[in-house]
Order: sequence, then C-alpha cells, then structure tokens
Amino acid sequence: MSDPEIVVSAPGKVILFGEHAVVYGRKAIAASLDLRTQLKIHLIPDSTAVTLELPDISLSNTWQVADLAAAQPTGNVDVKNPSPPSDKYLAALHRLAGTDTDHTDTRTLALLAFLYMYTSIHHTTVRKCPAGRFHAASQLPPGAGLGSSAAYCTALAAGLLTMCNVISRPEGKTWSKEDLEVINAWAFQGEKLIHGNPSGIDNSVSTFGDAISFKSGKISPFESVAALKILLVNTKGPRSTKVLVQGVRDRYNRLPAIMEPILDSIEEISCTCERVLLELGGSPVDGQENTQGKNYQILEELVDICQCLLNALGVGHPSLDQVSSITAKHGLHSKLTGAGGGGCALVLLRPDTAPDVIDKVTAELRDCGYDVWETSIGATGVSQHSQPK
Amino acid sequence: MSDPEIVVSAPGKVILFGEHAVVYGRKAIAASLDLRTQLKIHLIPDSTAVTLELPDISLSNTWQVADLAAAQPTGNVDVKNPSPPSDKYLAALHRLAGTDTDHTDTRTLALLAFLYMYTSIHHTTVRKCPAGRFHAASQLPPGAGLGSSAAYCTALAAGLLTMCNVISRPEGKTWSKEDLEVINAWAFQGEKLIHGNPSGIDNSVSTFGDAISFKSGKISPFESVAALKILLVNTKGPRSTKVLVQGVRDRYNRLPAIMEPILDSIEEISCTCERVLLELGGSPVDGQENTQGKNYQILEELVDICQCLLNALGVGHPSLDQVSSITAKHGLHSKLTGAGGGGCALVLLRPDTAPDVIDKVTAELRDCGYDVWETSIGATGVSQHSQPK
Repeated sequence: MSDPEIVVSAPGKVILFGEHAVVYGRKAIAASLDLRTQLKIHLIPDSTAVTLELPDISLSNTWQVADLAAAQPTGNVDVKNPSPPSDKYLAALHRLAGTDTDHTDTRTLALLAFLYMYTSIHHTTVRKCPAGRFHAASQLPPGAGLGSSAAYCTALAAGLLTMCNVISRPEGKTWSKEDLEVINAWAFQGEKLIHGNPSGIDNSVSTFGDAISFKSGKISPFESVAALKILLVNTKGPRSTKVLVQGVRDRYNRLPAIMEPILDSIEEISCTCERVLLELGGSPVDGQENTQGKNYQILEELVDICQCLLNALGVGHPSLDQVSSITAKHGLHSKLTGAGGGGCALVLLRPDTAPDVIDKVTAELRDCGYDVWETSIGATGVSQHSQPK
Repeated sequence: MSDPEIVVSAPGKVILFGEHAVVYGRKAIAASLDLRTQLKIHLIPDSTAVTLELPDISLSNTWQVADLAAAQPTGNVDVKNPSPPSDKYLAALHRLAGTDTDHTDTRTLALLAFLYMYTSIHHTTVRKCPAGRFHAASQLPPGAGLGSSAAYCTALAAGLLTMCNVISRPEGKTWSKEDLEVINAWAFQGEKLIHGNPSGIDNSVSTFGDAISFKSGKISPFESVAALKILLVNTKGPRSTKVLVQGVRDRYNRLPAIMEPILDSIEEISCTCERVLLELGGSPVDGQENTQGKNYQILEELVDICQCLLNALGVGHPSLDQVSSITAKHGLHSKLTGAGGGGCALVLLRPDTAPDVIDKVTAELRDCGYDVWETSIGATGVSQHSQPK
C-alpha cells in the first residue's frame, strides 16, 4: 500500500447472440462493451475515514475505519477463492450501510458490494482498514442489461486486490491470467450479493474482455477476438427481464415444436459468430481484405436473422423495430441485445463505415429520444490506468 | 346448350403459411380467397361471332365461329383427362390471338387460355363452336400472387364444361366432387398455358375452395375448414418472385445450418394451422366458445411468428413492416402472403373484431397508398350463380 492512488476501469458487456435461447441450453456469445466504469482509489494515511462516492446514483457515504474494522469477518478468508459472507457478516455489512437485510435497492446493493469487498480483502492481508476515498463513475446506463454492476464489482475487486498487493501491480495495462482469475472470483462474489444468482457471464467479460461463449452454465473465453465498432442504442423503454423470459417460456409451452427449431437456429448463429469473430481477430495477412469483407457480411446477416428470430420468440418491441428501420435505411444492421422488449440494441459498423452515415443514424436515433454511444465490443477487460508514483 | 346464360365465379387464393419453405419440401397451407372472378356466358344462337370481354385488362376480341372451328384439334380429346395442346394446335391458337408464339404478355396468355378451352371443350362434345359473348371480370388484382389467372381458368372451365353438358348443371351453387375434378383438370391445363409449370395449388383452391395443404408436390384438400375473416392488403410494391426465391436460395447456400431449422419451424406452423383450422371448421357445440377463442389466439400467434421467420428468410420489405406495425397498434395480426418483398399481406380478423377497429385499420392502410379488401378465406370454390331459365 505504498501508492496513494490507483485508477482502474472495467468494461460492460453486450450479448451478441443467443439471448433467451441460452435459457434453453443453447450457446450464447457475449462480448465486452467499451463503455467503462472507472474507479479511483486515493489513500489518505493521516485520515480515519473511508468515503465511497458514486455520483451516478447520487451516493456519498463516509465511515470511520474503526467501524469498518469491527465488521470484518472473524475467521480466515481464502483470498484466491472467496466465498459468500455469512449471515452474521452480512448483517454487519447491512448495519454499516444503514439498511435492513430486506433492502434490495440499487444504492443498498452498491454499498454492500463495496463494504463486503473492502472489509474482506483487507482482512485477508493487512487485517486493518486503510482510510481513503473511493470514487466510481460509469459510462454505462444502470439497469439496461449492459453489466454495469459487474463492471463496478470488477473495478472494485481489481483496485482493492492491487492496493493490498494480493495481485501484482501490472507493468502494462492489465494483469496476468492468474491475477485476473482472482479479480474475477471476487467480482463474482460482489455480483452474487447484488443479483443473488448471476450466471457469471457479466463479471467474466468485464474481467477478461474480448468475448466469451456460454452454454449450459459453462463459460469459454475466446482466444483472440476482433474489436468491432458498434453503435449502442438505449431505447429506455420500461421492461422487465423476468416478464420477458416468462413470455418466451409461455410461448414455448404453447408451441414447443415451432419454438425448438427457432432456438436451434439461434444456436447455429452463435456458432457461426464464434467462427467469424475468431477469423476476424486473427492477424491480418496480405490478400485477406476480401475474407474480412465477407466475414463482416456474414456478421451483418447473422444480426439481421437473429433480430427476426428474437421477434419470433416474442421479445421485440416497436422501439426496436424503429431502430432496425432507421439503421436499415442507411444500410446498417441492428439487433436487440439482452432481454428485449425495449432496452438496448446494437448497430454493427464496419471499419470503413462512413462517418457521415454514423452521424446521420445517430442523429435520427437521438431524435427518437434514444441514447446512442459510438463504441466498440471485444474491448480490453479490466485495466489499470495509473502507474506507480 | 338449352340455356342462353350461365354465370359462374371462382375464388382467388392466399398462401396462409409455408411460402418459400415449400420450395424446400416443407408443408404449405393455401386457402381460397373470397375475391372472385365472375364469368358470364351469353349464347346468341342467331349470331356467327364469339366475343371475349376482359374489361380489367381492356381486352375485347371477336372471332367468327368458322375461324374458331377451323382451329379445333383434329384428333380426339379426352374431356375428363385433358392434355396440353400440340405445337400445331398452339400455333393455330396464336394465329387466332393475332400473336406470335413468343408472346407471353398478360393479354396474349388470357386469349390463349380462352381459345384453348373454348375450342377443345366444344370439340369433345358438340364438335362445333357456338356463337356468344363471354365476359369475365375480377375482384382480384392481377400479378399479386392471388391466383387471378387460376380463378379465370377455373371459371372458364366450369362455364364451358357446364354449357356443353360435360358436367351436370348443379342443383345448388356447386358441382359434385367428380365434376369438380374435371373442372380442376381443365383449369390446370389453362394455368399451364399461362404459367408453363404451375404447382396446381391455385387452380385446386379455386375449384374446391376451403384450404389445401401442399407438400413435395402433393396437394391434400381439407375436409372442413372455417371461413376466416381477413383484411387483404396489397402494398403494390414492385417485386419479382424469381428474384425473391433466388435470394432465399442464396442465403440458404451461405448459411444452411441456420436456415434449415427456420424452415422446420415454418413446417410446424403449417401443421399446427391445419389442426386449428380443422377444429375451427368443425360444428360448434355448447361450451366450445373457449376452444374457439383459444384457436384464434393460436392462429394469431402463428401469423406473428411466421411473419418474423419470413423476415429471417430475407423476404420482408419496409411496406410489409408498416402493415405489421399499423395492424399491431390496433391489436391485429398480419403476415405477408406469397412471395413477399412487398406484394400482399393478410390481416387476421376474429368473428368479433369490432367494425370500428376494422374501419380504422383500413383507413390507415389506405392512407399509406395500399389497396385493402375486407374479405374471407376458406370460401366456397367455383360456384354457379344463375339457375336454368
């Protein structure tokens, strides 16, 4: 803890293909989204207070380090293989957060994840609680299915583990594979506090970056993936993932023989995407421009077909149709990402998509009241931004 | 030929489910469309002329009966099992039509179908050509994939065969099963002259009414089918069936593993539709209102899903999206019918769909420049409208 300041960032995620189908054991592809949550940790040795500032949700809490130390777990914590807090420990965290155990609002959950990781990680090492200021801000809209909570937990885990020298401060931007595994394990524990029973996709993508495939509970990161330019569109319509998932289940129960092959087709889209992304991510060699163009064409076709199949599952929405219609008019291809029924859509861009086309589409989508980001997927996972002083 | 006037009508057809998938051996469902082509035959014993009037295509041709008689085939014609005209016979028909054998425009084809059926059918019986006036007018837009040529050929076959007493004048509106088979055989020959290599779906539906399933070249009429109320919408966009079929083939060749299950799903939609239509067509008994409501709900869901899957095949069009969007806004369900890429859409109505909803939807669709008919499918096949005088 010789360094007074650490700055880390962790990306969000998008589901590229396979949303909903994944519930029925089909393969899904998720990729990191280069909208990031940045965490600045500023240690203040002379102070006795710890402050957490989350301006995105208007949260600023300060605790005395003595109170935080008192809440630390009494037994040993395996820093490489963390486990969920005991009921007693969780109750202590709730007291620090100033909430009851039945509070599950965003601010309470953000406080709990911080308090849990802060107290546990320090307990495994220095067994005391250093004073300082923790400031996290995100480019990710919360509650939009873009993994904002996982990016928060991953950034917290990376910052705290590095601050305590559980993992080595990396020479470049990112950590060794082994250290990333430790970050991911802690981020997953944070996600569990927030979501109860998360799949682990979000924290894995936020930690390792690039893309992963996910099938029947098994997460398989890709070796090398191209960073794809996209527009991310948030239609901001109210939606409930639970209601949408149940709607697909109801349709499946009514018409299983019709729905099964649709899910099979979506799985094949995920498999084709995986192959194409690996090809696009390979080192380019002379004469491969045509292959690249062909692969982008296939990706565009996968986006179009998958969007139609998601509509067939019943998770479309007029706002998403509007996104499709606007982007198609300009020769671009888009699909919903995540639960659907409103929410977010991604618009695939080619490396050579003309800037004025991007500007026009962005302007038209904003005119509809939607938020639009020009960003990329397949970006670097959790990263360090400050060097040792 | 004791009756100087005969009036018959024959319906068009719509593909309910399975368009395009049928090309890949999957089951399709076609139903009769209660937009009809009416043929009036007025015999004029004292005259020596035959006149054909087709006001829809601004056609009015008159021939001397002696010229028509001269063109009649020389050999025997099996009136119950007709065969295509010989090259010599076809050349004679072209001379009567005033065209070369390479003319394939709508008017030439309409003339040839009439001349072929008129001369052949009379040759099999009276071996002379009676004078009179043949007037055919249709509610069906031509070239919209609604079987207008089959309705024309079916009406011609029914009128001519009845006039010549090849089949008995029916007591009610329609003929016996055996007589309908003869009408259908002649209508198919007319369709062959017009289309070269038709599937036989259109003339079968126009002859027998109700609905048929079609798979791998085999046509199976349904025993009993409910007449369903629909709005038929013609978006009138230019389209080429050949180009659309080729587009699906190209996508299939690029992505067979993705496309195969989509086609499987469409086949299951056709199978489910067949079952639901048979249930809806059965005699209602007490307490079946709920079953009927449930069956309509399933039909609506099939319409929605199939429209999405047709989009996934790549045969959608912004105009069809607009139809879907307008109808969905009013709680109605629509899909393209036929080749897609513009063309026609059908909008399912329930028996209790409120008239003001129908009026509003119709008005909005017409405001887009589309033609809209409130009609039904599963209607009676070829019918007689005049009784013997």
